[in-house]
Amino acid sequence: MLSSVKIKWLKSLSQKKVRKHEGLFVAEGEKIVNELLESPWEVLDVFALDSWDHVVIKGKNIRYQTISEKELERISSLTTPNKVLAVVRMPQYNILDVNLSNNITLLLEDIQDPGNLGTIIRTAEWFGITNIVCSMQSADIYNSKVIQATMGSFIRTRIYYAPIEEFLVNIPQSLPVMGALLDGDNIFEKDLPKQGILIIGNESRGISEATHRFITQKLYIPRAHENSNLPESLNASVATAIILAQICR
Amino acid sequence: MLSSVKIKWLKSLSQKKVRKHEGLFVAEGEKIVNELLESPWEVLDVFALDSWDHVVIKGKNIRYQTISEKELERISSLTTPNKVLAVVRMPQYNILDVNLSNNITLLLEDIQDPGNLGTIIRTAEWFGITNIVCSMQSADIYNSKVIQATMGSFIRTRIYYAPIEEFLVNIPQSLPVMGALLDGDNIFEKDLPKQGILIIGNESRGISEATHRFITQKLYIPRAHENSNLPESLNASVATAIILAQICR
Repeated sequence: MLSSVKIKWLKSLSQKKVRKHEGLFVAEGEKIVNELLESPWEVLDVFALDSWDHVVIKGKNIRYQTISEKELERISSLTTPNKVLAVVRMPQYNILDVNLSNNITLLLEDIQDPGNLGTIIRTAEWFGITNIVCSMQSADIYNSKVIQATMGSFIRTRIYYAPIEEFLVNIPQSLPVMGALLDGDNIFEKDLPKQGILIIGNESRGISEATHRFITQKLYIPRAHENSNLPESLNASVATAIILAQICR
Repeated sequence: MLSSVKIKWLKSLSQKKVRKHEGLFVAEGEKIVNELLESPWEVLDVFALDSWDHVVIKGKNIRYQTISEKELERISSLTTPNKVLAVVRMPQYNILDVNLSNNITLLLEDIQDPGNLGTIIRTAEWFGITNIVCSMQSADIYNSKVIQATMGSFIRTRIYYAPIEEFLVNIPQSLPVMGALLDGDNIFEKDLPKQGILIIGNESRGISEATHRFITQKLYIPRAHENSNLPESLNASVATAIILAQICR
């Protein structure tokens, strides 16, 4: 049986400040937990139904506890809990260790919606992009909704949090910095660089004034008709996907 | 003051079966309600804060009621209610009236997530696509989360619900039917037709077996590396966006 202390602890990890303080987060569902167990990430605890195949943890130094469906429902953040829940240590990455000139690095400025952030990470991995820098005001990658929306891609990408200006001041001067802006060049009529930074702005405010000045290549996704009633922008994860497809095709 | 009967009625419209029975739905927020009022859609009731600019309803046959912030919070489905809420009549469109040979028609098979459905509609409009056919098991366009995610695009597109097989049996034989499948052709190495049907499958199951047989052009969005651990698919709204960008560029 799960003690009330343990339930309280697991629930407290749904708060960002507790996660940050403990350096731990919760991952849920058979697919994601199994992938974590096969990865270099450090899994500390596993709470699972009897029906979960626990062979994957044999011989590993992991605290393991069988729980009932009722207990899983109590500790799960999913609408439909899925067999297993794990407590995992956050890895520590340093953005200064990255060679930015090898590939595209995504720079996300204040992406707020967990679904968008997760979907962007999933899409980035699809196109072979593994370094993603988030501004300090972005949604937290270890929020359970973000974890779910990545469909496991957070395990194989490196997500850094950094003050955006400090990051941009310190990149190599020759590196192209792309950003989607309304007065940019049609992305379908240009050859886009395969190395550099791609900035995606906040869902409602777009890219901030302070960040604008770093952009060396303004990009625009052309729309079918110019009409004042048309939406002014695409969803942030959709815009990211269209630009990445165009860069990586 | 809002009567409890009215509050109950407004809340009941959050249920699909009530909406269907009454032929009415609720739209929220300044931008969307103002756009509806300037459109041919029939707005029956407006409930708004004093601070809402009600000039837009002058001379129109619309029931109008000023409400308090507390009342708006009670009837709103938004986390941050935004000044105004309207009750609107659903338009009746007939898919048989559409000339399918003029443009791309999106065919959505069981898209379940309201955010995905709304984002797909928003993206479709961006690329000039105005006819969207949803299978009967798709999320409901008049669900408040769908309405919000469209950012107003639902007003300027036509969304039809139809049994998918019945629809596909009756389209012109010469019309290309595209579908995203794992064994499809690389979309970046083909000229894609600018007229025809584009089928997008369910978030977890993809396109059903029964629908497969109608596909004349299998499409595939290539990923960077083949690796068994990579996600098997992209998010449905992301895949739609990448393919539409490639068709409409």
